[in-house]
Amino acid sequence: MVEFVSMENDVNIKDISFINNIKSMAVIGPSKKRDFFFLRNHAENFKGDLYAIHPTVKEIPGFDQRKIFTSVKNIPGDIDFVFIAVPPSQILEVMNDCTEKGVKLASIFTAEFSDSGMKEGLELEKELIKRAQDKVRILGPNGMGLYYPKLGIAWRPKFPSTPGKIGFIAQSGGICNIAIYATQELGINFSKVFSFGNGADLDFVDLLYFLSNDSETDIILCYIEGIKEKRGDDLKKVLAQNKKPIIVLKGGKTKTGIIAAKTHTASISGEDRTWKAIFKQYNLIEVDTLEQLLFAARLIDYYGLFDLKNIAVFSISGGYGVILVDLICAQGMNVPPFSPEIQKKLNSKFFTLGTSSKNPLDVSAQIYHSKIMREIIDLALSDRNIDALIMDLPSWYFNIDFHIKKDNTFEPNMIECLSLGHEHKKPIFPIIQRVNCPNDRARISRKLAERKVPIFGDPLEFMTLISKISKYSKKRI
Amino acid sequence: MVEFVSMENDVNIKDISFINNIKSMAVIGPSKKRDFFFLRNHAENFKGDLYAIHPTVKEIPGFDQRKIFTSVKNIPGDIDFVFIAVPPSQILEVMNDCTEKGVKLASIFTAEFSDSGMKEGLELEKELIKRAQDKVRILGPNGMGLYYPKLGIAWRPKFPSTPGKIGFIAQSGGICNIAIYATQELGINFSKVFSFGNGADLDFVDLLYFLSNDSETDIILCYIEGIKEKRGDDLKKVLAQNKKPIIVLKGGKTKTGIIAAKTHTASISGEDRTWKAIFKQYNLIEVDTLEQLLFAARLIDYYGLFDLKNIAVFSISGGYGVILVDLICAQGMNVPPFSPEIQKKLNSKFFTLGTSSKNPLDVSAQIYHSKIMREIIDLALSDRNIDALIMDLPSWYFNIDFHIKKDNTFEPNMIECLSLGHEHKKPIFPIIQRVNCPNDRARISRKLAERKVPIFGDPLEFMTLISKISKYSKKRI
Repeated sequence: MVEFVSMENDVNIKDISFINNIKSMAVIGPSKKRDFFFLRNHAENFKGDLYAIHPTVKEIPGFDQRKIFTSVKNIPGDIDFVFIAVPPSQILEVMNDCTEKGVKLASIFTAEFSDSGMKEGLELEKELIKRAQDKVRILGPNGMGLYYPKLGIAWRPKFPSTPGKIGFIAQSGGICNIAIYATQELGINFSKVFSFGNGADLDFVDLLYFLSNDSETDIILCYIEGIKEKRGDDLKKVLAQNKKPIIVLKGGKTKTGIIAAKTHTASISGEDRTWKAIFKQYNLIEVDTLEQLLFAARLIDYYGLFDLKNIAVFSISGGYGVILVDLICAQGMNVPPFSPEIQKKLNSKFFTLGTSSKNPLDVSAQIYHSKIMREIIDLALSDRNIDALIMDLPSWYFNIDFHIKKDNTFEPNMIECLSLGHEHKKPIFPIIQRVNCPNDRARISRKLAERKVPIFGDPLEFMTLISKISKYSKKRI
Repeated sequence: MVEFVSMENDVNIKDISFINNIKSMAVIGPSKKRDFFFLRNHAENFKGDLYAIHPTVKEIPGFDQRKIFTSVKNIPGDIDFVFIAVPPSQILEVMNDCTEKGVKLASIFTAEFSDSGMKEGLELEKELIKRAQDKVRILGPNGMGLYYPKLGIAWRPKFPSTPGKIGFIAQSGGICNIAIYATQELGINFSKVFSFGNGADLDFVDLLYFLSNDSETDIILCYIEGIKEKRGDDLKKVLAQNKKPIIVLKGGKTKTGIIAAKTHTASISGEDRTWKAIFKQYNLIEVDTLEQLLFAARLIDYYGLFDLKNIAVFSISGGYGVILVDLICAQGMNVPPFSPEIQKKLNSKFFTLGTSSKNPLDVSAQIYHSKIMREIIDLALSDRNIDALIMDLPSWYFNIDFHIKKDNTFEPNMIECLSLGHEHKKPIFPIIQRVNCPNDRARISRKLAERKVPIFGDPLEFMTLISKISKYSKKRI
């Protein structure tokens, strides 16, 4: 029988809390032609017992022969999770086996169901759900299913194995692939990612409720093209009980985008203003690109929630500082003067011509005095008029070949400087421009990610996001 | 005597056309303490005769001893250009020497003139101009002067030595440093860059006129914080005669930004709406960040001018394709259906489940059939309803370790695909997301730069720019 989680106002949610305890899994139908791709990917990191189900294959190079079976029914122990990649013609029989075996969750990669737009596909999907008897919960069909690094569940090769606190729900598997592969560059990690394809059983509302109540998830990301109309009220109820920040990327906002979304996942996007109203009412953070979705998640993951009004600017180039001031003010934030006692102390730290100790700070060539930079940033952040600091620090400064006097203390000192935000509980947003020295930038990026300092390459990558996160935080308090 | 270029309506412009023929230069006052920084930097690439002028130093390691003099007057031949970095107290004497020697152009790095905000500095600047007698043209003081890769004039180490067709004018030296060091990553090159500091002699209007008439420059970039009020009419006259695309970044647009600009270069920014009106009247392309300034320059440098209305989208992830459609339509462009005969041909090229042959194209896993991708892109661009193609191609596809079947032909075939824009004279904008594989991305970026294909990491890096460039081109025709 289907389990309904009891919620106020009788919202219907399918319970999948069992997934945090998946101990065994099987890949059903790994393709020999594709060198058992999905089996090998799961074998990379899966921490429990992994089985391969194939009607004819007896041997898979590098895979324990004793773990190959012709049916999931023949596996001696329990099977919690299956990843199914059989042709549509075999799906019903496979599902019968799963139901009989007591499988709890099935990811169905197989396509050509309702996504085909054909009557046969739609009927096959209905029959599939019927065979699952509400005993087997289904992700898909036509989806990539579940990425769960803590347990090593990963549908593609080289997916990171480090768990984080960010959850992500998307119909599109391609979007998930980009997001998951991007985490290494960004220095973030996912708790769980769901690619639910046609959403024939588990849908956006179920998965959102799950992440909203999942102790392993602090931040929720969504890419959504649409939901079934009948689920609108359930969605609102789930949003009403949610306490976590939800960052949402809505696909199908414009007239042509709505048509494209329909072609993609047969989603009915609905009016953008309806979505906008829901996002506003339940205080969701809406972004415009996948990159913004990930950048916003990183900001909250690293700094927690923040509500920023007054920003200190720290620039090596006075001109770049002026541009930053314009961008900050255009977002409705301020670049105020420092308070008198802080200003006085700051004045004493500037001794090079062409610098400015006022906000925006212009340190110019004095940047190489990295110990003094630490004092300057520390002072700026200790000003109670200041909520955060944005700085410009091009990557060549981290390449010793560009130094006039080779100074090995510059890099560790600057890493300390950039980490000061956490001491003051005020975010620092360093823009380390992509100029020459990509390897030096990558090294600094890694070092700063370890200290939970997010770097950017371009102010437009985060400027609107800090304003959106501030609005969210303010409304939340 | 000062030479005025004759222009309609008597605009006063100082002629510096001689700089294209600089054959000899001297660095006056290279600092021993800083290991003769500016001398060494110019020695890296300067193609003519380079001299060092120092009152006491007789030897500079690695520098021809016979080219060290105590005064510019003692150099046997002509000196076209000097880079001056002496203390303010010595500047007048040095300028006397330059005038006497017949030096044509002086870059004055020395600060503490009008930029100091002090009466003494202002008077020193006036006296400096007087001593130059309109015989020596001055860049600065308080500027970095001239970067001219064709002749090897470069104020910092490792400035690229390859000349391009993009000119850049900025007061701020720091902005110029970032821009010049960024060219390698971006795959663009400058013709000339001017950092004119206080603009005591040559100012924004003079330099803009120069680049506007410089045969080595096709595209003009400007970072401007303000100009002297009396030069407003001259600026308009220069803009009226200009035929080249000018991309402008205005510093000091907001109230606080205006104050910051004044602190930075004593510039009077003026009302933003006054500037906006000028930019509109003379059809300048205004951008909001230094990164956009460079990205816009690259777009025009690679593809020439374009006016785009109808865009084909090519995506590996249907979801990413939907997002792109929304972004494109939000800019007022369309993602229209292909014309019937092209659509018919396209249909025959798609054979994998989960793909879509309509616009937005969703190739999904079929991407690995790279020869067919070439045919698909070729067909899409041959549609006369289509002006350009935007595509999403995450960087891991260029790493063979991520291939199911290791395919060495994928990379060369995709390079061919991405270069098809030039064959059709329709731009292709590939988004190669920064996901894992940074080295593969860097390699592809270099290969594509050789073929003048600009890659981006994020759609927001170029989406507004292609719309702005289109508006410029349309108004221009």
